[in-house]
Amino acid sequence: MANRVPTPTPEDKFSFGLWTVSWAARDPFGDATRPALEPSEAVANLAELGAWGITFHDDDVVPFGADDASRTAHLQKFRDACDEHKITIEMVTTNLFTHPVFKEGGVTANDRSVRRYALRKVLRNIDLTAELGAKTFVMWGGREGSEYDGAKDLAAAHDRYREGVDTVAAYIKDKGYDIRIALEPKPNEPRGDIFLPTIGHALGFIAQLEHGDIVGLNPEVGHEQMAGLNYTHGIAQALWSDKLFHIDLNGQRGIKYDQDLVFGHGDLLSAFFTVDLIENGFPNGGPKYTGPRHFDYKPSRTEGFDGVWESARANMATYLILKERAQAYRADPEVQEAMTTAGIFESATPTMAEGESFADLLADRSSFEDFDADAAGARSCGLVRLNQLAVEHALGARG
Amino acid sequence: MANRVPTPTPEDKFSFGLWTVSWAARDPFGDATRPALEPSEAVANLAELGAWGITFHDDDVVPFGADDASRTAHLQKFRDACDEHKITIEMVTTNLFTHPVFKEGGVTANDRSVRRYALRKVLRNIDLTAELGAKTFVMWGGREGSEYDGAKDLAAAHDRYREGVDTVAAYIKDKGYDIRIALEPKPNEPRGDIFLPTIGHALGFIAQLEHGDIVGLNPEVGHEQMAGLNYTHGIAQALWSDKLFHIDLNGQRGIKYDQDLVFGHGDLLSAFFTVDLIENGFPNGGPKYTGPRHFDYKPSRTEGFDGVWESARANMATYLILKERAQAYRADPEVQEAMTTAGIFESATPTMAEGESFADLLADRSSFEDFDADAAGARSCGLVRLNQLAVEHALGARG
Amino acid sequence: MANRVPTPTPEDKFSFGLWTVSWAARDPFGDATRPALEPSEAVANLAELGAWGITFHDDDVVPFGADDASRTAHLQKFRDACDEHKITIEMVTTNLFTHPVFKEGGVTANDRSVRRYALRKVLRNIDLTAELGAKTFVMWGGREGSEYDGAKDLAAAHDRYREGVDTVAAYIKDKGYDIRIALEPKPNEPRGDIFLPTIGHALGFIAQLEHGDIVGLNPEVGHEQMAGLNYTHGIAQALWSDKLFHIDLNGQRGIKYDQDLVFGHGDLLSAFFTVDLIENGFPNGGPKYTGPRHFDYKPSRTEGFDGVWESARANMATYLILKERAQAYRADPEVQEAMTTAGIFESATPTMAEGESFADLLADRSSFEDFDADAAGARSCGLVRLNQLAVEHALGARG
Amino acid sequence: MANRVPTPTPEDKFSFGLWTVSWAARDPFGDATRPALEPSEAVANLAELGAWGITFHDDDVVPFGADDASRTAHLQKFRDACDEHKITIEMVTTNLFTHPVFKEGGVTANDRSVRRYALRKVLRNIDLTAELGAKTFVMWGGREGSEYDGAKDLAAAHDRYREGVDTVAAYIKDKGYDIRIALEPKPNEPRGDIFLPTIGHALGFIAQLEHGDIVGLNPEVGHEQMAGLNYTHGIAQALWSDKLFHIDLNGQRGIKYDQDLVFGHGDLLSAFFTVDLIENGFPNGGPKYTGPRHFDYKPSRTEGFDGVWESARANMATYLILKERAQAYRADPEVQEAMTTAGIFESATPTMAEGESFADLLADRSSFEDFDADAAGARSCGLVRLNQLAVEHALGARG
Repeated sequence: MANRVPTPTPEDKFSFGLWTVSWAARDPFGDATRPALEPSEAVANLAELGAWGITFHDDDVVPFGADDASRTAHLQKFRDACDEHKITIEMVTTNLFTHPVFKEGGVTANDRSVRRYALRKVLRNIDLTAELGAKTFVMWGGREGSEYDGAKDLAAAHDRYREGVDTVAAYIKDKGYDIRIALEPKPNEPRGDIFLPTIGHALGFIAQLEHGDIVGLNPEVGHEQMAGLNYTHGIAQALWSDKLFHIDLNGQRGIKYDQDLVFGHGDLLSAFFTVDLIENGFPNGGPKYTGPRHFDYKPSRTEGFDGVWESARANMATYLILKERAQAYRADPEVQEAMTTAGIFESATPTMAEGESFADLLADRSSFEDFDADAAGARSCGLVRLNQLAVEHALGARG
Repeated sequence: MANRVPTPTPEDKFSFGLWTVSWAARDPFGDATRPALEPSEAVANLAELGAWGITFHDDDVVPFGADDASRTAHLQKFRDACDEHKITIEMVTTNLFTHPVFKEGGVTANDRSVRRYALRKVLRNIDLTAELGAKTFVMWGGREGSEYDGAKDLAAAHDRYREGVDTVAAYIKDKGYDIRIALEPKPNEPRGDIFLPTIGHALGFIAQLEHGDIVGLNPEVGHEQMAGLNYTHGIAQALWSDKLFHIDLNGQRGIKYDQDLVFGHGDLLSAFFTVDLIENGFPNGGPKYTGPRHFDYKPSRTEGFDGVWESARANMATYLILKERAQAYRADPEVQEAMTTAGIFESATPTMAEGESFADLLADRSSFEDFDADAAGARSCGLVRLNQLAVEHALGARG
Repeated sequence: MANRVPTPTPEDKFSFGLWTVSWAARDPFGDATRPALEPSEAVANLAELGAWGITFHDDDVVPFGADDASRTAHLQKFRDACDEHKITIEMVTTNLFTHPVFKEGGVTANDRSVRRYALRKVLRNIDLTAELGAKTFVMWGGREGSEYDGAKDLAAAHDRYREGVDTVAAYIKDKGYDIRIALEPKPNEPRGDIFLPTIGHALGFIAQLEHGDIVGLNPEVGHEQMAGLNYTHGIAQALWSDKLFHIDLNGQRGIKYDQDLVFGHGDLLSAFFTVDLIENGFPNGGPKYTGPRHFDYKPSRTEGFDGVWESARANMATYLILKERAQAYRADPEVQEAMTTAGIFESATPTMAEGESFADLLADRSSFEDFDADAAGARSCGLVRLNQLAVEHALGARG
Repeated sequence: MANRVPTPTPEDKFSFGLWTVSWAARDPFGDATRPALEPSEAVANLAELGAWGITFHDDDVVPFGADDASRTAHLQKFRDACDEHKITIEMVTTNLFTHPVFKEGGVTANDRSVRRYALRKVLRNIDLTAELGAKTFVMWGGREGSEYDGAKDLAAAHDRYREGVDTVAAYIKDKGYDIRIALEPKPNEPRGDIFLPTIGHALGFIAQLEHGDIVGLNPEVGHEQMAGLNYTHGIAQALWSDKLFHIDLNGQRGIKYDQDLVFGHGDLLSAFFTVDLIENGFPNGGPKYTGPRHFDYKPSRTEGFDGVWESARANMATYLILKERAQAYRADPEVQEAMTTAGIFESATPTMAEGESFADLLADRSSFEDFDADAAGARSCGLVRLNQLAVEHALGARG
């Protein structure tokens, strides 16, 4: 049988969370099925598979509560491995969710001493991020939220969230670091309702920040889909708002617990359009994502290390197949024609003419009084044909 | 650009609900965007596109409340078109949901006179089904259910449902008709909670029938997915129970209102495995679906008739592409090897040895006392690799 | 049996969409079960039940496409009824979803002529809103969105959405009207994915507007719950952003089609906390909602007009019962003590001390180096007890 | 403030899973926040709170892999505590999900040696169940399922599931034990798709068993709601099929990860109707649940042991409040009248008259030819009023 699956190279800018391939596969109903993995071993294997970058939480490399000497040693070993294998550390994040101290929240905990502790833990990692030369600092507030609506003063909690993020951002500016913060939304799990549950809520929150200029988003495929939302629509609004700072690619099969499947092992057609947007941009131009293609997934609990590395490879392979498909889709003259028919290009023309005043608009009888709404309503939009072309391209039946 | 999309023929046994291409595109928030379509015109167009069969509700062909003469005339015109275009009428169903009389239920309505009316409407169509030579009679109880938990005596409602279906089945037997009944589950919409919400509930219900031998299922892709359930798992349990009498293929994008998209325009990877099961059967053999490949979808409201016919074509095209992909997937030696590694074939071996008694099992120390559970738990199952092979085959990157 | 259900008065500021009690009960699978209701009759009945206000879409009062004379006559009759029954017209909105012309969108339609028509239809109603003295103009973009990810240039669509809302806002300012715009988010239905799907997405969008100062939100209970999101959390973030301009109360039973049930007939405990927030505000003070208590629901299709009026009454009755319960909850010393224990009041204290610098924080060893994270993680938060107190108050078993 | 919350007694037959109050609060993103709890301490505390019974998995009492001597010692200590505190051990179950050996399944694992091991582990507990005098043996197949549709031969898997359950049932009969098996459905988590995902699928499966006469269900509130299904409807169908052998009460807030909240802390109105069905039965009589009122929940991770015991109390308190409310609801003459109007009692009358033949029905012109469908469709069903009476009773505003 022929095998036309592309092989990744560092030029593809694929990066992985260290915690992905290192996940020991403990779940809410089961014990770990894999032993701990040395960070340096993860780095070596990812490099061999063609990855370009890596990202990590502090506690992925340094055990929680380690003293400075131990911390330095762990970090050095990890950095050495990255250097040896030419793996770029492109993003750093802080674990504010595993230890019981964060059980009721990190920067929004009702207990002020917990909030101060969380803030200190974050600031320490900001210094580390700068030292490592990473440009993105992700904040996932997985414990910021509640199970019960009465468990929080919701305004005070948002005040504390704003204070927390603004303090971190101010610190970055104060230090002159070249770092941007990327918030990662999630609707629930491990909390019943997490604050900033979707891309939209995070965008709305950022607008309330004092230092929102260096705060953006790191949206994850599965997190949006856990709220039944369209991931491509979501990152499009983030891009349109100039806030798509980083990206978490993975797979999810509908509204349920956070599955963290391999990219493409969830909603495959949605993955096609996500890759199409990332690689080809909006049809009429506009802001484009240029950051790493970052995978945040979990190798299934049924797998040994062979399955761990196979799953890492699979993320990249599927991305590259979809990239080829999306390029062929856009290049197909039949698709271009169908996009024209559907009005995709017409949508770039503003509704108001250049310089048109309200008086002009109200005086334009063709726009209302003489407009034949019934005739316009009877026009066919040709959207099914366009989508079927996408499906046929995605499946490799065209191009 | 190359186009490798297959073209359907009657041998593929594709059939369509008459109500699909005829849908006038009225939705809960909008008026119809397309005019009514003559049934004969639908037949002609579907035949031209390569379809083999058609199905209908009584009210799709004959206006509700029409007298016998009018009914006969409408039916004759429709049958003539089917004859002319060599389209097989393979299934008939009764509309027990559009008219206000059914607003609180059909065969389970609290109002007994409504139940009797519903039963009479159904029996009339059983005679018609026999007359037309169709072998399957579908019952979708879209109005059987409630919005409020107190609105029904739930035991009495199930009694009435059983009485209704058993009466219809008894009538079929009494008349000596060669017809089987296929129940169509749906979790909600238009009622808040519909009785027999999933494939499983219908299977459990059939087990309580007196005449359950001629009652099976007509499961719809989107209906199961509206409950977040796996459609392929669902039809597999129905097949395993020898109850997959008919099938409704379409597309749905997650848990939301009933979208009735084109097959493959929803969860594409799930569609691949559905086609794999229908066309290739279970890996170790067993019951196989041999009925029509029936589409129950709605051409999007944005479309004119060009989009209606394009959407009809798209259903069949995507099915045929996935059929090719699934055949290559099964034929690939690498896939066969991965299936062996994953234990797919071992699963066919019974857990107990032939003739093994309880005493034998309890005496087999290798099965428990000497079994190394830790070693067994450390074995890799190779499931991610197998799934990635499926993804790469589905995308046409292998084979 | 005793009946302790409160009766509403105009002081409660309850208002209803005219389209709620007038809904003819046509659904995607069924014809209308109730005749059209004269707007003036709706007004009279709502007034008699104790309502204070009413809201409407243009097409609820004036048939689509009516000429100016007909429009004036219809509006006058409606206004006379409101005057006669002392019903306040508090909000107006435009129907950009029923007519086929809007099938592919209103202000974001790919077809520019449709966008211009939509804009003219909206501006006409802005003038009407001002003339009627209503202070809120709601924009629900129910047709702004897509079924297929390739059907839109998502950046251009957001550009057009911004242009549309900014143009309307600029017109309001230009005319000197005392009107604010309230956007109404919804995740899907009637479109597969609607733009601005949640409260959060709308907040993020408003931050990109030129005239965002007069644009806020009109969040609906069921719409947020259709995305599995917590409504009380959502309106809290909107309030915290000073953007809760209006509110749509109703009921929904989980993630499914838009049910528009009576308020309290969905998630009852969530309704309790929503009323608690609206009536009692955040525990530590802050922004408070002071607008109308507006119901946007649909009397079930099973009901005649007796059920229509009973459902209208039920919305208000349940709200008032929950208001009593929420007031007793807050006043209960045991609840206050439990809130203190849970740290609800402590959450109002900023994480950083007044005037504390980064240097100060980093030098505070008690916040990190000497902090006993294990001890802090072992402290009990007392959240279950607090929630149970809420449940017992909601059920009237305390207070 | 007055406190009218009832206090439970052993007569209420409340029982708890030992694993509920003993849960150490480890979740997918966080470490345990509570220390292990001695089983005997759990027993003592539950008894003091008014509980009547307890249930457990083998591994809750005896560490996995313990030798016979250790097993006997652990069990004896637990039994002594139950005797001392007059706590009834009413159900036993086997843990086939925590250890890595079950990562790909228990009785349906592709690996036959795992299946045999699982079967042995179960049979050992069947003997224990008999020895302890418990009458119910629960089988939750949390690992029976898959993440990927190709990972199983779905027919073979159902064959193995049938073989597994039938073997256990045959063993029970062979030994002459007075034990019934109760299957516990769940749609997903920890597996992507679990076999027998809902009450319905389990009912359909039981119909395929050889020894289905002693196999029934143990449905859990949250598990059904994770599929968006109506729990009361589900247990009603199980009761109607004479298969409701046991029950798991808890709380869930919609379709998301398995929350295992306190009963009533999820969908409160649904909880009211569940209690109404359990305590008051179907309005027209019929099968009634008479087993233990069993809670399967998890005390939130934010809580110390004070919260653990408070949450145990809360389950019982809310149940008892709702029981009072449901009794008042049924006793209210206004409710009885509304139920009559809604046709609840009429639904008990069969659709066919006694002895009525098909010929009789077809000859009854009043049932069809002379039936005024429009008039019947215009009748008001009065369902909103009935539901509002339930809401007002649930909230303690009536009665």
